[in-house]
Amino acid sequence: KVNGERLWDSLMQMAQIGPGIAGGNNRQTLTDADAEGRALFRRWCEEAGCTLGVDEMGTMFAMRPGEDPDALPVYVGSHLDTQPTGGKYDGVLGVLGGLEIIRTLNDLGIRTKHPIVVTNWTNEEGTRFAPAMLASGVFAGVLEQDWAYDRRDAKGLRFGDELDRIGWKGDEPVGARRMHAFFELHIEQGPILEAEGKEIGVVTHGQGLRWIECTVTGKGQHTGSTPMYLRRNAGRGMARVIELVHEIAIARQPNAVGAVGHIDVYPNSRNIIPEKVVFTVDFRSHILDTLEGMVAEFLARAPGVCADIGVKFSSELVGFFDPPAFDPVLVGRVRDAAERLGYSHMDIVSGAGHDACWINRVAPTAMVMCPCVDGLSHNEAEEISPEWATAGANVLFHAVVETAGI
Amino acid sequence: KVNGERLWDSLMQMAQIGPGIAGGNNRQTLTDADAEGRALFRRWCEEAGCTLGVDEMGTMFAMRPGEDPDALPVYVGSHLDTQPTGGKYDGVLGVLGGLEIIRTLNDLGIRTKHPIVVTNWTNEEGTRFAPAMLASGVFAGVLEQDWAYDRRDAKGLRFGDELDRIGWKGDEPVGARRMHAFFELHIEQGPILEAEGKEIGVVTHGQGLRWIECTVTGKGQHTGSTPMYLRRNAGRGMARVIELVHEIAIARQPNAVGAVGHIDVYPNSRNIIPEKVVFTVDFRSHILDTLEGMVAEFLARAPGVCADIGVKFSSELVGFFDPPAFDPVLVGRVRDAAERLGYSHMDIVSGAGHDACWINRVAPTAMVMCPCVDGLSHNEAEEISPEWATAGANVLFHAVVETAGI
Ligand SMILES: NC(=O)NCCC(=O)O
Ligand SMILES: NC(=O)NCCC(=O)O
Repeated sequence: KVNGERLWDSLMQMAQIGPGIAGGNNRQTLTDADAEGRALFRRWCEEAGCTLGVDEMGTMFAMRPGEDPDALPVYVGSHLDTQPTGGKYDGVLGVLGGLEIIRTLNDLGIRTKHPIVVTNWTNEEGTRFAPAMLASGVFAGVLEQDWAYDRRDAKGLRFGDELDRIGWKGDEPVGARRMHAFFELHIEQGPILEAEGKEIGVVTHGQGLRWIECTVTGKGQHTGSTPMYLRRNAGRGMARVIELVHEIAIARQPNAVGAVGHIDVYPNSRNIIPEKVVFTVDFRSHILDTLEGMVAEFLARAPGVCADIGVKFSSELVGFFDPPAFDPVLVGRVRDAAERLGYSHMDIVSGAGHDACWINRVAPTAMVMCPCVDGLSHNEAEEISPEWATAGANVLFHAVVETAGI
Repeated sequence: KVNGERLWDSLMQMAQIGPGIAGGNNRQTLTDADAEGRALFRRWCEEAGCTLGVDEMGTMFAMRPGEDPDALPVYVGSHLDTQPTGGKYDGVLGVLGGLEIIRTLNDLGIRTKHPIVVTNWTNEEGTRFAPAMLASGVFAGVLEQDWAYDRRDAKGLRFGDELDRIGWKGDEPVGARRMHAFFELHIEQGPILEAEGKEIGVVTHGQGLRWIECTVTGKGQHTGSTPMYLRRNAGRGMARVIELVHEIAIARQPNAVGAVGHIDVYPNSRNIIPEKVVFTVDFRSHILDTLEGMVAEFLARAPGVCADIGVKFSSELVGFFDPPAFDPVLVGRVRDAAERLGYSHMDIVSGAGHDACWINRVAPTAMVMCPCVDGLSHNEAEEISPEWATAGANVLFHAVVETAGI
């Protein structure tokens, strides 16, 4: 069993870097706080006897050698970056849970046959630079590295430049590593495990996602002196599209979700009718047909919803992944570990996207989930109990060590 | 008659300070560009032999002495600050049109009985610091000076501190000056004069305004892993309120307008359901009952529109003025001047708010309007012809000089 206290202590230490204002974290990708978090993680990995590799996307790989020089490593990890109003566990638990496996193996003096590599994927959250899971997407060969470098944040800064600036652009070619398996421990970020009273979620599938960046264009006019019939109000276009997104998702319950979380209004003045609104629609479903049906219906209807009030709609796909099905053998090992350790558990579909969703395409992959209070995540109030964290790390430990062999 | 070429030339010189990106201006109040524009205006006033007073709100008063030492001055002016995407004429024409009167009187060697004072009111636009017409509101005794100093911009900077910083906090008590009359020349900012083929609008009335800053509060949750039925989406609340604003204004055609131009979403991340949205509703009508009816209906219905989807609505009035009726005698002088000079003209209601709307409460006041292309304003593409500018300044000249006496 892992040392749950040590794991919790590390989580709390990491949470001090890039603190939020309401008890959580704002440690967004490629910020100074991200660099500081990475440096702490590197120190811990080196203290645990690992050697660190960094690839050209900034992803960190900390290796504990195995006995068999020819055996491919078993990878385990998640991400250290957070939302602007992020919690202390989303991603971090998976990285530090992986580190805890290595520390425990060191304590026990166990050598595994396969090396074990703890991974911190760059820009999982996708807030500062869309899309989410950017580095794992490039690793899996689904996204282009040059395209990823060209992603820009709201200030217009390039991903590639910011990676350079914080000093974490490594020299390893991205995706060159071959994996025996990949495991990711993550908080559920939804309410199901807590509601069902389960300590462990055995993730069999995930939801697919489409992020559609929409631009509604009207005319920037005076709010006082422009007669109603002459207005081309891009803000109203956005309002109608937000309701359309909701309607499309609601019609597919319980198999779909949809919302708009990001909205920028131009020029954003109290007495100017919005000239342009840029916003991103987030559609998800664990059924590919449902997901594609939502997008098709949306793209068919949104232009009309806008044209009806004299404004123009255009859109671009800025994030996507199809619903993944994880490796049945590894998923079975997670389920068996939970059972063996006496934890209550259930099979579950991941509502959020994870680096595991991309890595699943290039290596056998599985995920372990633990509950979070109220299903709340992407919120500084995100909370889990130390017992849940320990249970998740124990299941991860057993599944990883069984796969790495002793 | 005024020197139209000189007026146009001054307009173009002022437009070079705080240039926009699309041919207009971004010379927002109390920015460095505002300070630069003020310095240029001061130089021009001094070159024209005026003495400058500045009050504690930063409003500039450039006086050309009269013959009668006891006669109250005739004031004329508008504002030099612009929207973030402002035009070259909104406000500026009224200030430089006033200066052109003085230059013309100098050319002609005419001394008026009453002094003439050209005024540049601080923060007319209200974009950076709500409400609009802030300094004239304090001057008229409707707004409190300390309250005005405490207004904050989106970065949290205080109006009073920024006024200090740019070096334009004067020492004259605000509102101490008594006025014989106040005249303001302004572009229409609406489509009526152009559509009717008139060179001059004789402004008899103005619209009243209410700015209601609304906050819709929901819960910041994960867009992927939160089931639809558990969501409290503040963005949807905002969308529904935007449509409500439109519905309320449309029901009162042609006597009302309503829109939302300013929207801030928190935390504004693609995969976080909006926790909070802050936005400002702008309602206007030239009929007080209609205006108050809109606000009453809005405040009665908006909370329910939000509660229906599980989010909370609250609001605060951040800008207001009642529909003004301008002084019939001065309005008659404007009409007579247009007639005498042979300009086509019509009576008109001002759709926008103006400093004249506040000054109207403490002095006999009138406005002169000239057309603008397409009725477009609060947009860098705002345009007028030199002929329109000249016509407006000529009517202003005649009305002011008649009132100041020779
Ligand atoms: N786990 C997580 O929140 N990842 C960010 C990508 C997503 O929005 O699902
Ligand atoms: N003239 C003008 O646009 N003033 C700003 C106040 C308003 O929104 O009417």
